[in-house]
Amino acid sequence: MSETAELLISARWVIPVEPGDPVLEHHSVAVQNGRIVAVLPRDEARLRFAGAKEHTLEQHALIPGLVNLHTHAAMSLMRGLADDLPLMQWLEQAIWPAEGKHVSAPFVRDGTLLAAAEMLRGGITTCNDMYFYPDAAAAAFDQIGMRAVVGVTTIEFPTPYASSADEYLRKGLAARDQWRGHPRIGFALAPHAPYTVTDDTFSRIVNLANELDLPIHLHVHETAHEVSEGVHQHGMRPLARLEKLGIVGANLIGVHAVHLADEEIAMLAHYGASVAHCPSSNMKLASGIAPITALTARGVRVGLGTDGAASNNRLDLFTEMREAALLAKVSSGDASALPAARVLRMATMDGATALGMADSIGSISPGKYADLCAVDLSTIETQPCFNPVSHLVYCAGREHVTDVWVGGEAVLKHKQLLQKPNSELLAIARVWQNKLGN
Amino acid sequence: MSETAELLISARWVIPVEPGDPVLEHHSVAVQNGRIVAVLPRDEARLRFAGAKEHTLEQHALIPGLVNLHTHAAMSLMRGLADDLPLMQWLEQAIWPAEGKHVSAPFVRDGTLLAAAEMLRGGITTCNDMYFYPDAAAAAFDQIGMRAVVGVTTIEFPTPYASSADEYLRKGLAARDQWRGHPRIGFALAPHAPYTVTDDTFSRIVNLANELDLPIHLHVHETAHEVSEGVHQHGMRPLARLEKLGIVGANLIGVHAVHLADEEIAMLAHYGASVAHCPSSNMKLASGIAPITALTARGVRVGLGTDGAASNNRLDLFTEMREAALLAKVSSGDASALPAARVLRMATMDGATALGMADSIGSISPGKYADLCAVDLSTIETQPCFNPVSHLVYCAGREHVTDVWVGGEAVLKHKQLLQKPNSELLAIARVWQNKLGN
Repeated sequence: MSETAELLISARWVIPVEPGDPVLEHHSVAVQNGRIVAVLPRDEARLRFAGAKEHTLEQHALIPGLVNLHTHAAMSLMRGLADDLPLMQWLEQAIWPAEGKHVSAPFVRDGTLLAAAEMLRGGITTCNDMYFYPDAAAAAFDQIGMRAVVGVTTIEFPTPYASSADEYLRKGLAARDQWRGHPRIGFALAPHAPYTVTDDTFSRIVNLANELDLPIHLHVHETAHEVSEGVHQHGMRPLARLEKLGIVGANLIGVHAVHLADEEIAMLAHYGASVAHCPSSNMKLASGIAPITALTARGVRVGLGTDGAASNNRLDLFTEMREAALLAKVSSGDASALPAARVLRMATMDGATALGMADSIGSISPGKYADLCAVDLSTIETQPCFNPVSHLVYCAGREHVTDVWVGGEAVLKHKQLLQKPNSELLAIARVWQNKLGN
Repeated sequence: MSETAELLISARWVIPVEPGDPVLEHHSVAVQNGRIVAVLPRDEARLRFAGAKEHTLEQHALIPGLVNLHTHAAMSLMRGLADDLPLMQWLEQAIWPAEGKHVSAPFVRDGTLLAAAEMLRGGITTCNDMYFYPDAAAAAFDQIGMRAVVGVTTIEFPTPYASSADEYLRKGLAARDQWRGHPRIGFALAPHAPYTVTDDTFSRIVNLANELDLPIHLHVHETAHEVSEGVHQHGMRPLARLEKLGIVGANLIGVHAVHLADEEIAMLAHYGASVAHCPSSNMKLASGIAPITALTARGVRVGLGTDGAASNNRLDLFTEMREAALLAKVSSGDASALPAARVLRMATMDGATALGMADSIGSISPGKYADLCAVDLSTIETQPCFNPVSHLVYCAGREHVTDVWVGGEAVLKHKQLLQKPNSELLAIARVWQNKLGN
């Protein structure tokens, strides 16, 4: 282990998430070259890393940066454009017309910047994004200092971005080539959904995923309608079709997974696939309640996602942590279901593992990137504090996040973004509000 | 209508909640002697009330102060003391022992101060409180400038506060007498629950409620166990027993109302009774999902409550508004259930009506108290803003509340409480954390 550190981050509580679920009091995290080199008691850290600059967080919990396992970042520009509508009406009357008219590389760059700003301000350091113009999205994440897995989104119908599955794949993979080797920007294959992608395209994606060692990011079994339509069109439920096509594997991130039969839960467990649970979106669109306690009982890995701002309408994993815990309890009839520490692990380590990044992010562990989030628990809303992990899930909000680091680089300090001034981001939002509002 | 106003509050959007669900752009609220005297376009207001001091909120929505229809304020001191436990284990192993050891008049005064501070900071100007030592609670609400309906809590088992139902009633009514005529402090009869109060005591309470014209604030049908135990002990479901005893009437605020048969919903509608819906608490304790869409479809008035901080753990009606909307959608399978404007009305006007205060609070209407809440919608998290009502429910949080008035008196300004310094409140929390933590 290195005996040099350029930065010590010392906190009232350090909550590394693994191994186990410890709460370390008055500990420090030592950082060198963007990586964590040690987690140790503060007094010891000050002796051992005497030359390091120290950032002290006297009343904070320091946690791993949160991992948002499913979002459509650029849709931040359509936040609250339409609500309280059934899914198909919402898509057909509001979202798709707006997208058809407005989506472009500048839309994606600006929307992704705004979304990334919101996520970083709320302690999310990594997101798994699925939208159009992945190159523009990657540029925005890079510019603001966030870590992201950008989707090579693939869908069979034409948009201003591409006109065929072949063109979506070609352009997406070209973007991936261009960003190869970037320390914070990665890519995933992102076929949109079973009902918008053909068997042929899925087969190509399986080959590409194996060849390029990429995750597959896919909406699956979001609504009952999707499942029954799948049966109608293909003679089998979508997950059975996906299994047959070879899509279900350890690199699959199945988003939503609301409507699952027992044997489908067993199938996901068998293949080591992951689920991206998006409780707010599933509730708001009345899609249903994903069987998270059954999934976790069978050992299926579950991370948390915000979905896009048009269907949530917050890109806020604090809200999703609380929602996941509360929804699991009420739907299982068991108040002990998904306890706070388990939910925090879902929002960090389990999301990281789903993305194939277990060795580099998701916990405060030596050797990993210093992706860190400081949460101030000294406010009136978070006092008294008997258990900081309980407070992180049930009581605190993203507004208590004060400081965030990505790869050891400070991106949020005293609640201010360092890479982009708020004024610039708000000006971007105004421009698009004027365009979309007309 | 008065042509004099001492204060004009001008906002980008004024959302009065009634009549109808309008959003008034660039309007002002004129205030004189603590009451609203007019709601009118800003330019007109400046002419008509030329002498008034103006408070301008360029990027805010101004809404009626929120009404928290059910809380146990002083339990803020037990926030996060125990979580992730089934209801009876949580009560028997954590909450009741802590209460038995610590609850006293100073505990209630301090806990209520902390809770009231949290509520005011989150835009809640009125709460319906149920706990012990109502006199101490009233003093705390008064001191910090909040409006409250304090419960004459009645329960058959002894606590340090009182040893019999008779003593609970006597002490509670004495407190009421002492606070009579106070413009911000009112009282309700608060029998704890069907399973903790006898028929005789309920009968006394019916008489007192009629005689003194007071609301009845009562937990009812919170869990399936409560209902089946009621059948076991009384040969009928609790609501049938309460109807027989005369408790079910237009002045009843039935808290939780999770487990309701169709005929019980019809009964509540028939009597004009109200329900205090506490979605977070019902979810966290795995009590179940209250049939809110069925209740509102039958015309039962539903307000929103936070419950106490020990079971929520946020005294935050923004969270409860969002939770109520999302839970209604997913449980009814209808994304159009409980649209945003309806939820905002539940958190304001419907709560006010349930408390018998429809004429004095709950909307921004001439003649009512100027209980007002300003929400800043110009942050990165709330931009763009196509519809401020959608943002209030789905996107904004209590952290966006900047200014609050109660009866025309500023109690929160630029997020700072004016009647109590934060340092004093945090010192209180520390003292009790040390006591309770041991």
